[in-house]
Amino acid sequence: MLKPGQPLPLFGFFRRLLGQDRAFRQAIATVTGRTPDNVRLYHLAFTHSSVVRQQGDTARHQSNERLEFLGDAVLGAVVAEYLFRKFPYEQEGFLTELRSRIVNRESLNALALKIGLDKLVQLDPAQGRAARSRSVNGNALEALVGAIYLDQGYKAARKFVLARLIKPFVDVKSLIETTANFKSKLIEWAQRQGKTIRYDLTGQPRSGGVMEFSATVMLDDEPVATGMGLSKKQAEQLAAERALTALGV
Amino acid sequence: MLKPGQPLPLFGFFRRLLGQDRAFRQAIATVTGRTPDNVRLYHLAFTHSSVVRQQGDTARHQSNERLEFLGDAVLGAVVAEYLFRKFPYEQEGFLTELRSRIVNRESLNALALKIGLDKLVQLDPAQGRAARSRSVNGNALEALVGAIYLDQGYKAARKFVLARLIKPFVDVKSLIETTANFKSKLIEWAQRQGKTIRYDLTGQPRSGGVMEFSATVMLDDEPVATGMGLSKKQAEQLAAERALTALGV
Repeated sequence: MLKPGQPLPLFGFFRRLLGQDRAFRQAIATVTGRTPDNVRLYHLAFTHSSVVRQQGDTARHQSNERLEFLGDAVLGAVVAEYLFRKFPYEQEGFLTELRSRIVNRESLNALALKIGLDKLVQLDPAQGRAARSRSVNGNALEALVGAIYLDQGYKAARKFVLARLIKPFVDVKSLIETTANFKSKLIEWAQRQGKTIRYDLTGQPRSGGVMEFSATVMLDDEPVATGMGLSKKQAEQLAAERALTALGV
Repeated sequence: MLKPGQPLPLFGFFRRLLGQDRAFRQAIATVTGRTPDNVRLYHLAFTHSSVVRQQGDTARHQSNERLEFLGDAVLGAVVAEYLFRKFPYEQEGFLTELRSRIVNRESLNALALKIGLDKLVQLDPAQGRAARSRSVNGNALEALVGAIYLDQGYKAARKFVLARLIKPFVDVKSLIETTANFKSKLIEWAQRQGKTIRYDLTGQPRSGGVMEFSATVMLDDEPVATGMGLSKKQAEQLAAERALTALGV
């Protein structure tokens, strides 16, 4: 029996839903700097595949994986332009390497946490820790870029990436120093140990007429670590980085 | 001695230059559908590194390699959105694979020839055939997308890619059929030969927390071909494609 003035249960349900929706809109506006137009895109961006996987493989397009694919591409273009303009005298290899250091999994995860995306991501609670793998938040960040792109256009997505991610949180200078240092750090370490460093390089054609290179760091003719890349330099740098980790330097 | 009415030599030089410039502008407008604003960007897009390499490594930023980096990223974003919208129920792996078939080296080279870019690319004539490698035109096409992006903005670059490249020249349906067919084609062939096909899979962590998979096609327990990719499916598909080539099927 409803007392006079008491709201109908169904009305309460909708009001609660509306309240939630308003809170979600507000959260998106806070994170992105813009009030969302099509909220469903943002809900999709924060829906991890573990939530919809229960409904079978055909429901996977209702998770954020597709938006992640799109957002990854948009992010790549925005960061490419940013570096292109910032370093007018640097070559393509430098720009490629630097971009991969900005948009790699670890970096995106860290950025996602910095803007609080972990509080918005929807996971299947039954899967717990397994679903909350280290890349969940970084993937949601890419998906969010995809959602902004579809909802507000390229310019808005670009502005979000530059003003909310890169400029406040990415220290490009220190990234450059780290990048340049792996190979020389390894050589210095070897010299102190009285050992020699050499790189064994092999190239293998990949689909699309591209060559993929593999570089193995040889410490006194013993293999230590291998890196792959689309240029010899990239492969060597990755191999040097891994060698430093493997050697505990 | 100049006769009356005969133009000054210097004037003729500038007129010729201006005429060339007008012809180049016209060519760009024909190819892109828009009159260029900053013509220098387009000159840069068609300057192969062999032309500036004579001036030493410091001049390499005056070749099209940097624009190629930028254009590659913009192209990736445009094609990602195109496929995202065209295939609303397909998963991320499908979109990734299909995009790589549209923007790979061979496909870009073919597209570049179709819109006549080979007539605009500036190579070092001394290097002749060596410089005119198979990827020169595809690279110039990517650089052109980068030039349009900087000169006219994202929307114009997107329009160019969709209206002048993808829609007239890319047969997405047949690309899908080819993609799907490598593995089944290989199995059918093996069955006709009374042999067995198996894939040996290994995964290796790459920088950025990404896994790279390697799949080797085993024909009656003998390795035939190997493919690598960021998913098992991608690695197997590439391996199957290479196995078909290696077996001459």
